Amino acid sequence: MTEPTKIDKDKVGTSRRRFLREGGSIMGGTVIAGALGGSEALAASESSDNLPPNVPEWMKTPGEPMGGQPYGAPSPFEKNVIKNIPKDLRQYLSASGRTPLQDLDGIITPNGLFYERHHAGVPTIDPAQHRLVLHGLVDEPLIFTMDDIRRFPSESRIHFLECSANPGYAKPYGETASDLVGLLSCAEWTGVNLKLVLQEAGLKAGAKWVVAEGADAAALTRSVPIEKCLDDAMLVYSQNGERLRPQQGYPLRLLLPGFEGNMSVKWLRRLRVATEPTYSREETSKYTDLLPDGSAREFTFYMEAKSIITRPSGCQRLVVHGFHEISGIAWSGRGKIRRVDVSVDDGRSWQATELQEPVLTRALTRFSLPWRWDGQPVVIQSRAIDETGYVQPTLAELLAVRGENYYYHNNAIWPWRIAADGAVTNAYA
Amino acid sequence: MTEPTKIDKDKVGTSRRRFLREGGSIMGGTVIAGALGGSEALAASESSDNLPPNVPEWMKTPGEPMGGQPYGAPSPFEKNVIKNIPKDLRQYLSASGRTPLQDLDGIITPNGLFYERHHAGVPTIDPAQHRLVLHGLVDEPLIFTMDDIRRFPSESRIHFLECSANPGYAKPYGETASDLVGLLSCAEWTGVNLKLVLQEAGLKAGAKWVVAEGADAAALTRSVPIEKCLDDAMLVYSQNGERLRPQQGYPLRLLLPGFEGNMSVKWLRRLRVATEPTYSREETSKYTDLLPDGSAREFTFYMEAKSIITRPSGCQRLVVHGFHEISGIAWSGRGKIRRVDVSVDDGRSWQATELQEPVLTRALTRFSLPWRWDGQPVVIQSRAIDETGYVQPTLAELLAVRGENYYYHNNAIWPWRIAADGAVTNAYA
Repeated sequence: MTEPTKIDKDKVGTSRRRFLREGGSIMGGTVIAGALGGSEALAASESSDNLPPNVPEWMKTPGEPMGGQPYGAPSPFEKNVIKNIPKDLRQYLSASGRTPLQDLDGIITPNGLFYERHHAGVPTIDPAQHRLVLHGLVDEPLIFTMDDIRRFPSESRIHFLECSANPGYAKPYGETASDLVGLLSCAEWTGVNLKLVLQEAGLKAGAKWVVAEGADAAALTRSVPIEKCLDDAMLVYSQNGERLRPQQGYPLRLLLPGFEGNMSVKWLRRLRVATEPTYSREETSKYTDLLPDGSAREFTFYMEAKSIITRPSGCQRLVVHGFHEISGIAWSGRGKIRRVDVSVDDGRSWQATELQEPVLTRALTRFSLPWRWDGQPVVIQSRAIDETGYVQPTLAELLAVRGENYYYHNNAIWPWRIAADGAVTNAYA
Repeated sequence: MTEPTKIDKDKVGTSRRRFLREGGSIMGGTVIAGALGGSEALAASESSDNLPPNVPEWMKTPGEPMGGQPYGAPSPFEKNVIKNIPKDLRQYLSASGRTPLQDLDGIITPNGLFYERHHAGVPTIDPAQHRLVLHGLVDEPLIFTMDDIRRFPSESRIHFLECSANPGYAKPYGETASDLVGLLSCAEWTGVNLKLVLQEAGLKAGAKWVVAEGADAAALTRSVPIEKCLDDAMLVYSQNGERLRPQQGYPLRLLLPGFEGNMSVKWLRRLRVATEPTYSREETSKYTDLLPDGSAREFTFYMEAKSIITRPSGCQRLVVHGFHEISGIAWSGRGKIRRVDVSVDDGRSWQATELQEPVLTRALTRFSLPWRWDGQPVVIQSRAIDETGYVQPTLAELLAVRGENYYYHNNAIWPWRIAADGAVTNAYA
């Protein structure tokens, strides 16, 4: 990998104070006629339907009350910004709903659009009846009510969560950023450091794994190395301030920051401390990767560094030449994002982007690059570099190492093609 | 103000590994019978209804599908965690809905629970028809569509927003943290730095104020000093990742971090650059403070440093003696929170608390203090100190300066009383 060139403001052609102009005339932000008396800018861009109504209809009568919807909902004009859920899914067996990443800004995913992945539907759990059992290699096996869990010291941290099959094929498919990597979201989680809870019971010698079990009909079970449990693992009861949604494990879930999503067991009912992993279905027949030599990678915990441009991205369209911001998200299960590079010439050269502060460990990081589109066809793409120095690979690099049979942990760079008419499509589809 | 004592772990009586114990026996987290064969810990706390069902009902059949609710909703068991809206409000005149702070964790407020304050109801605005007009003392008056606004470079920042009347009386009333200071929330906002938009039009000499007007039936109008407009003011279109809710100004609002909430004009349709403020209704008859000498404070932009303990807080109850975490939120319109002190002896002594990272400017900051309740009546309270060195005042200090006629900008310390039976009430009510 070569070092990227620095952002050259002159090269992208944006003076610091004129973003919506192309060749001197304004390509957005119509100049008001009366105030200017017919300047060139006006002649170039005036269109009567761009002028505002003097008093729009919604100012002529009082608006809607709040009372009918104490919890609130998005605007009816945003009704298509919803989770992307396949229509013919047998959800009691396997279900997923993808976050519409291409419609979102910032790094926080609202709870209503957080991605979902279920193995036997969404249980409805009464928190007063829910219990967490902690047993196995501990001095004192314990049973906790939700009130007990809430009495421990709390902490809140912003972390991403990502399904290990995101996308779940060797070759990227799909049209939108959501199709590609929409099993990814980020939230502020609140709960208890798992270490404190394990210390309450006391770990015995030989404690090497903690086997976590969910209270769904799949009894989803995963084995977690004790090192992670004594590091940043959390028992989580709140997400973005409010209690977990049922789809996110209400009333209690495990959170293993940076690990593949299914290990952060939802509806958590049991932690068994053991010397060996349990080799459950979700860590043997599923969530392993078949390699070219016939062996399988198992216990592939970490989600490696990855990024995607969300604007412009698949199914969007650039309608004017001139200034456009390239914006996207990057993340790494290994820690903080150190840098994100963007190429606007099909991978021949790369420029470093600006990272939105604060850059947090194992959280989404928003990057952006000012750019000027000249109307020619172009392929754009991003690559993430994390604090370990790991560089997001190209698809060719990934296939060379893993072959085409693997299903999980696809973190290849995904390029978008922009056609002369401004249409944006998946360059690999 | 004297410096607070440091947290003394021994004083609060919490060993690092035993939080749920009191005098050797466990007061939460029931010890499992079979595993221990009748230890003291078991004898002291076993209760059959604390034992978990071996396989709860919700594990016996597949759960609910996602398909019926693509946007998602909280658990039905959280149906009472909603905005606190007075029942007999004539909402077309004046409406407010308070965030249930005492039920929330962390620093992010979910969009469904973000506080609301309206002066003529909530308009339903078609973003394709919405326009922002920028005129007055500018080189080129401009009209922007939402697509124009979205083409500018974007930025996302986490900031609180607070109504200036929070609470809107000289003397604190109400029972819960929401009653007292629930016109307060915090989100990740995405939009455009207002400075870039003003530069696009070009400011003329003499530009000292920007008058912002909303597209609601109140045409809510406020004057903003040009210094703020060229600093951290934003034109915001997204909140916590998704587009603004209608109640928060969809499709476009002004955001003035740290200033009183009503200045962050919602449904923003007009910015007029001027030499003088406009002296609108909301900056003359409202949102000014009558002082003891008969004069009125006006243009009281900044929300000064403030804090509140949310757990334990009014209407909650401590059901066991022993370890409890004291947790709350602090904020300052002037910048970052430097420190939050807590007193557990009716203000006689103070301890510094731990601040949750990251501590962001003009954002909520979560503080916490480990504490052991011995079952005696006690008064607890918090005080915030911001990076300017400003210290949140007591109510007596505030009344001495401002008298009892002022209505806005009440940032006094609010103590909670804990009775011997564990009931928590407003110590001033």
